[in-house]
Amino acid sequence: MTEMEKPRRIVVIGGVAGGATAASKARRCCPDAEIEIYDQDEFISYAGCGLPYFIGGHSPNWRRLLARLPDEFESRQNIRVFLRHRVNDIDPGNKRIRVADLEGVSESSIDYDRLIIATGAAPFVPPIPGRELEGVFVLRSLTHALEMKSFIDLRAPRRAVIVGGGAIGLEMCEALRRLDMEVDLVEMADHVLPPLDPDLAGKLGEHLERNGVRLRLGAKVEGIMDRGGSVAGVATSEGDLEADMVLLSIGIRPVSDLARRAGIELGARDAIRVDEAMRTSAPDILACGDCATTRHLVSGEEAWLPLGSTARKQGRAAAETASGGEGRFPGVLGTFVLKAFEMTAGKTGLSEAEAREAGLASRSVTLEDAVLPGYYRGGGRMTAKVTVEENTGRVLGAQVVGDYSAVAERRLDVLAVCVSAGLTASDLSVLDLAYAPPYSHPLDIPIVAGNLAEARVLGKECTCTMEGLE
Amino acid sequence: MTEMEKPRRIVVIGGVAGGATAASKARRCCPDAEIEIYDQDEFISYAGCGLPYFIGGHSPNWRRLLARLPDEFESRQNIRVFLRHRVNDIDPGNKRIRVADLEGVSESSIDYDRLIIATGAAPFVPPIPGRELEGVFVLRSLTHALEMKSFIDLRAPRRAVIVGGGAIGLEMCEALRRLDMEVDLVEMADHVLPPLDPDLAGKLGEHLERNGVRLRLGAKVEGIMDRGGSVAGVATSEGDLEADMVLLSIGIRPVSDLARRAGIELGARDAIRVDEAMRTSAPDILACGDCATTRHLVSGEEAWLPLGSTARKQGRAAAETASGGEGRFPGVLGTFVLKAFEMTAGKTGLSEAEAREAGLASRSVTLEDAVLPGYYRGGGRMTAKVTVEENTGRVLGAQVVGDYSAVAERRLDVLAVCVSAGLTASDLSVLDLAYAPPYSHPLDIPIVAGNLAEARVLGKECTCTMEGLE
Repeated sequence: MTEMEKPRRIVVIGGVAGGATAASKARRCCPDAEIEIYDQDEFISYAGCGLPYFIGGHSPNWRRLLARLPDEFESRQNIRVFLRHRVNDIDPGNKRIRVADLEGVSESSIDYDRLIIATGAAPFVPPIPGRELEGVFVLRSLTHALEMKSFIDLRAPRRAVIVGGGAIGLEMCEALRRLDMEVDLVEMADHVLPPLDPDLAGKLGEHLERNGVRLRLGAKVEGIMDRGGSVAGVATSEGDLEADMVLLSIGIRPVSDLARRAGIELGARDAIRVDEAMRTSAPDILACGDCATTRHLVSGEEAWLPLGSTARKQGRAAAETASGGEGRFPGVLGTFVLKAFEMTAGKTGLSEAEAREAGLASRSVTLEDAVLPGYYRGGGRMTAKVTVEENTGRVLGAQVVGDYSAVAERRLDVLAVCVSAGLTASDLSVLDLAYAPPYSHPLDIPIVAGNLAEARVLGKECTCTMEGLE
Repeated sequence: MTEMEKPRRIVVIGGVAGGATAASKARRCCPDAEIEIYDQDEFISYAGCGLPYFIGGHSPNWRRLLARLPDEFESRQNIRVFLRHRVNDIDPGNKRIRVADLEGVSESSIDYDRLIIATGAAPFVPPIPGRELEGVFVLRSLTHALEMKSFIDLRAPRRAVIVGGGAIGLEMCEALRRLDMEVDLVEMADHVLPPLDPDLAGKLGEHLERNGVRLRLGAKVEGIMDRGGSVAGVATSEGDLEADMVLLSIGIRPVSDLARRAGIELGARDAIRVDEAMRTSAPDILACGDCATTRHLVSGEEAWLPLGSTARKQGRAAAETASGGEGRFPGVLGTFVLKAFEMTAGKTGLSEAEAREAGLASRSVTLEDAVLPGYYRGGGRMTAKVTVEENTGRVLGAQVVGDYSAVAERRLDVLAVCVSAGLTASDLSVLDLAYAPPYSHPLDIPIVAGNLAEARVLGKECTCTMEGLE
């Protein structure tokens, strides 16, 4: 690929994670360029992943979610920010966008040398009867969060139904229980957090129930019940649930319609298709963040796995390419982690079922244990499931569930790097990880998992326990 | 290498970490062989790394340090254990050892098909005047710990001097301060924990001082002062220190004299030289654990880096080889971690100075920050220093220091796997690590370190902060 020349004008559409990062990075790469951000919302550059903690009161001051204020972009980085400006059209041929000022009536044409599309993703709301009622919420933007918080403060709802048991749904279970609300969680699948296997997700489900969340698994929402324009409850295939408030956290979709209308190619899940340098199919137009595709590094397939941390890495790469260099973001493992009450759950890479879909034969080993030696007070328990390719022993993925105090995210990260680097079960079994009694057993979970996988998947005659004796 | 045939008799000398693991593993590989452990101590198979926590009272019941009792080896695994038996000689030609029963007067000859030497390491005590006085201790074995604990319980010493600021010395600072003793720490180097660079070790030193430890850096012990056969104090090059009790934690040495006398080749630091399969220079004799050499995976050089977790991995490999298979332990990164009061310190791979000795040109980047987003209450602060090879960008090593609550061991482990797998700074910068606000910034420390190293070491024009904005 040839490098593009230095641009005079870089225009960024969208300014939350991918867009804000791209603009900042572009400024460093191009000290003299004009850089502008257009966003239809009134907030940019905030921590979207922090919204549940604001609502639940763990992070009570929403202004702390703002990483950088619009006038800081201007004063510190000479990046012009246009809030409440909606981009209506992209004209790739003339390298121009049409922008409407939502506060006024004006529409103007804006030229660019390089355009970075960072329009993000939006909540998916199926056509459920009653979804327009007062007290029905989605939670994606800071504006959504402020609306919900205001409703909670003014109306003091006592009963909430959360529809969708993914990451946001689970984090919001904790948030709303902190506010002493009764919480029903409705999930169509037969276990919470569908990306996890049922055995691990089951442990998380039990923990939610111990914390007062009523699980309604295998239940389909049929409608939201009305009492004078406000929410009265949720009708599901498994019966009616009373509610003063409903959160629809069913899923999100990439915001790619603007790109599609400009003739830009879409890819997985209708996200904007990008290459490793974040280029779209249109010249001088890049995309990054939750609106863009990426590649799954294990399956090798194009994927759409939106996440704040990925958005920032893609934003950097997009800015490097837009600046005339060659940014590079090779892809993701789909790694995620979340906290629900005092439990951690997470995943990296492929499960057995996902490996099968990708044409890879695999088997898994599962370990459950206290993470610290028996004689050392403290720590907690965790379960790890490690998926290994048959014959080669290559580590394809891992799932963890455990007490927050068990630091399961540490083992998850170790396994994520192992998947990234293409290590095998045998490599795992001799990793030189950090050991002292306040941190782990002499042979920490990834090492023991490597031993177990050698024995069970590769047929090597051995097992070992975390106490390290066998 | 050819595989050896299945042995009928496997004899193991030493039964703490490497030896106990080797015997257990050998039993699984050879269900029908006779397996015997000889150890001159009265305890085997205990958690040596747990001794400071027993003394300090965090793990008050010393019996919990015993991973497996001798009669459990016999009843569960049919492994015969001979305690208080000292091996006086090895006769490799006749495949026989001479063993003295320390409780009686008998000496007997014992045949073996395969011999595994796991004699461990012993405290190094320089010829300091007064080292034989009552109240002067070393801490290596459970017997040492019981003696020290008994002395503390009966004599109630108020002032302790700890000589040597390595891992044991630092852990014992915490242990003795927990017992309300005054503690002076004497260290010859100009900073505690000499394997760390001074900038990071300095933070640890400040933390020790905040917890009431008086640091005596750059001080050399000249003698131990006598008051009627008991300790009265320690004379150092920087002045005299009063003391009722002294711990000499200066270092350890491999116990390799038995092997040396049998004509077995020694290697780095006079440890028993082994290959990847744990074979010594003598046929049918293997070695593992703290008495054996290993290989440093970054420098490629033979090394002696004794550690409980390494001992267990080597024990497994030795048993596989002894059983007629081909065990494999490729080597170590010298990874360690320790807790001192409420701080974590650790290291993996090479520092810049060590890289230089190994002929590798390198540079380091250092980051210090809170580990969680500003809006999320909790977490702590940590510092990470990552050393990267010039030109290639390969990650050679990392050092961390931080609050215990900052989970520095997680970042250390991630970096250890990166060093293991030969990843570069650029690889670090796009790692797909687990992110959610209760666990890290969107771009966690290893990722930011990768970005910084790309910029500073490889000259790529970019930086980024943990908030992920730039």
